Amino acid sequence: MIANLRIDLDRLLGRLDALAGIGAIEGGGVCRLALSDEDKAGRDLVVAWMEALGLAVTIDRIGNLTGTRPGLEDGPPVMTGSHIDTVATGGRYDGNLGVLAGLEVVATLNEAGIETRHPLAIGVFSNEEGARFAPDMMGSGVHQGALDLDEMLESVGIDGTTVGDNLRRIGYAGETECGDVRARAFVELHVEQGPVLEEQGITIGAVEGVQGISWGEHTLTGVANHAGTTPMRLRRDAGFAAAAIACAARRIAGEMGGDQVATVGAITLVPNLVNVIAKEAVLTVDLRNTDEGLLREAEARLADAVERISGDEGISVARRTLARFEPVDFDPAMVGLVEATAERLGYSVKRMPSGAGHDAQMFAPNCPSAMIFVPSRDGISHNVAEYTAPEDLRAGADVLLQVLLAKANESGGR
Amino acid sequence: MIANLRIDLDRLLGRLDALAGIGAIEGGGVCRLALSDEDKAGRDLVVAWMEALGLAVTIDRIGNLTGTRPGLEDGPPVMTGSHIDTVATGGRYDGNLGVLAGLEVVATLNEAGIETRHPLAIGVFSNEEGARFAPDMMGSGVHQGALDLDEMLESVGIDGTTVGDNLRRIGYAGETECGDVRARAFVELHVEQGPVLEEQGITIGAVEGVQGISWGEHTLTGVANHAGTTPMRLRRDAGFAAAAIACAARRIAGEMGGDQVATVGAITLVPNLVNVIAKEAVLTVDLRNTDEGLLREAEARLADAVERISGDEGISVARRTLARFEPVDFDPAMVGLVEATAERLGYSVKRMPSGAGHDAQMFAPNCPSAMIFVPSRDGISHNVAEYTAPEDLRAGADVLLQVLLAKANESGGR
Repeated sequence: MIANLRIDLDRLLGRLDALAGIGAIEGGGVCRLALSDEDKAGRDLVVAWMEALGLAVTIDRIGNLTGTRPGLEDGPPVMTGSHIDTVATGGRYDGNLGVLAGLEVVATLNEAGIETRHPLAIGVFSNEEGARFAPDMMGSGVHQGALDLDEMLESVGIDGTTVGDNLRRIGYAGETECGDVRARAFVELHVEQGPVLEEQGITIGAVEGVQGISWGEHTLTGVANHAGTTPMRLRRDAGFAAAAIACAARRIAGEMGGDQVATVGAITLVPNLVNVIAKEAVLTVDLRNTDEGLLREAEARLADAVERISGDEGISVARRTLARFEPVDFDPAMVGLVEATAERLGYSVKRMPSGAGHDAQMFAPNCPSAMIFVPSRDGISHNVAEYTAPEDLRAGADVLLQVLLAKANESGGR
Repeated sequence: MIANLRIDLDRLLGRLDALAGIGAIEGGGVCRLALSDEDKAGRDLVVAWMEALGLAVTIDRIGNLTGTRPGLEDGPPVMTGSHIDTVATGGRYDGNLGVLAGLEVVATLNEAGIETRHPLAIGVFSNEEGARFAPDMMGSGVHQGALDLDEMLESVGIDGTTVGDNLRRIGYAGETECGDVRARAFVELHVEQGPVLEEQGITIGAVEGVQGISWGEHTLTGVANHAGTTPMRLRRDAGFAAAAIACAARRIAGEMGGDQVATVGAITLVPNLVNVIAKEAVLTVDLRNTDEGLLREAEARLADAVERISGDEGISVARRTLARFEPVDFDPAMVGLVEATAERLGYSVKRMPSGAGHDAQMFAPNCPSAMIFVPSRDGISHNVAEYTAPEDLRAGADVLLQVLLAKANESGGR
């Protein structure tokens, strides 16, 4: 009875451990930058596992790996997958879990002798992190037609070499056209990378979408002056204006509530001395919301605050957009399936947005897509201390298994 | 009739120009760091002028120059003076005006054949700026017993050499004991270095005292986290707390009013990235007031705000005192004399505090002391753009002349 089928946690943990041994760094973390020697070794291991599981492995021109398990019918596969590249001080779960849970699903199906109506495929997407080559989500972006292949192959990394050069160097410049594999549906298991599930004691996140991102850099120009001899009313203090904008950003997030977040992560004052009123301040504001209309409202509110504060202080402002992405909505039916599946398996579940970008969002415009989150201890990620408890890994992989089975056995059109 | 005696503006401007030629830098400014070769050349010129005016020149062990004009009676001189060292990007008026206006007063008296009851003396105090050697106001501090001579001679400068070494090197390690010249009274002419006189269209500032200074450095420790995945309510954002404290400092100054000023000139965030909630922030708060009780109130209000903000945000705070000086009150009778003299000469005058430290404050505990301020264009100082209009220089020097005459002709005890 496939509804009672469960993954083998020890086998999944074994693969996670083995892959984490490639590019291992102190503290239990991993440094496996995209298209590095470590990435090549990791890919070699995953390809070997895929082949041992009987998957048909293809490599496309941006280096994405796809391992496909045939279905009873031909046609587009139901896909899962993620990435195995990491940031320089990465953890062992980010991305890797999504790939290895996919392999674990196949291993479980193989062991139980279960065939599915539609093919199943596991994607390993190149350079999701963007830590070596910009932009991030490169492989899935090219795969889904959001990014241009030739442009991406020319992308120059932090060491001055290109994506194309490195794909050839490590032997992963494949010949499959990136659009050759079209998915019937896509679901990705990933660690939350945030604190919400842990804080609420919930095991499974049914991810409804990915937040839109608005990054602005504000350069405030005031007048440097003596902190002792300049009366308060005559100041044009760029440092104060920066602080007031940071407070306004916090207030806007509070007033809007919901998923709206606002962060001033960077403030740089000039000359940055105890007794000199700052003549210049550069600050960044990171606004995110799952709703494009609300994100625009946050941007407008912030712009109003910046105008008012700078006007009151008599300083000038130049704003530069550092990044702007609209929110991505996952397919409601797929989100509902993740939620219902988690409930059926007896896990607590919560609908939630993703605050970070993921490969799944590249699929969302083209096929029904969703994500499954499992808790990150202390919300920590991109850090060697990244950790998800084994029981939560099991829960996430079991939900993935059942969602993939449901989608792969659906009848008719999608 | 000495009440109608006036200085010679061209002669004063000529000396200002000549001295500004030593260590001249682009933009009309001066770099004449304490005890540098340029300082030696400036001292040589001032000593030559003093001797040409018939003054008896002494050099004390911390390198202070004193040029004394005898009185009809023996006894302590009425003193004026200031400093000729500058910051690295200094102007030509800061300090220099006080010294050269003193010489101009003597030249005016000599020319008019006027003798005073008490001697007059002009002091040129070593290292007022503290730009090369700490602390500032070193020469006047040792002169008035507030600083220890031997300790100051060992003070190591930014180039690794000591005050004592440099005094010997430039030939200004004098043999006069620093306490040998005691002043009957002290009055110093200085540029305001702030915008108040210009903004109010007033020519003369009768300085009532020097603001007390409280400098605190706060190190705020929160938790670094992802700007996208961390809900607002779970943040422990050291950067936000720093911004909130900067806003609180501004609000405290506004609520207290009067002479209270508050400046957050330096904010440093870690890691200072657009998409990472800051785990650490270091910010300085500069509080100043002319009243010690009010300065303590400002400190207490700020401490309350820091405690509340850090408590609300769940971050820890460590505070370090960078500087703490009590306010200095000048002698009310001397301040009244400056004010009355300015009025008698037909100049607009305003009682005001000094926001910056000056040599005169070292004299205040030991003899009746006061200062005369003249306007600084745009309030700019410690900058090559420092400028005071010739007519304002004339006004200040004439007030200095008449105040010195009044004090030098006083009968009896002081």
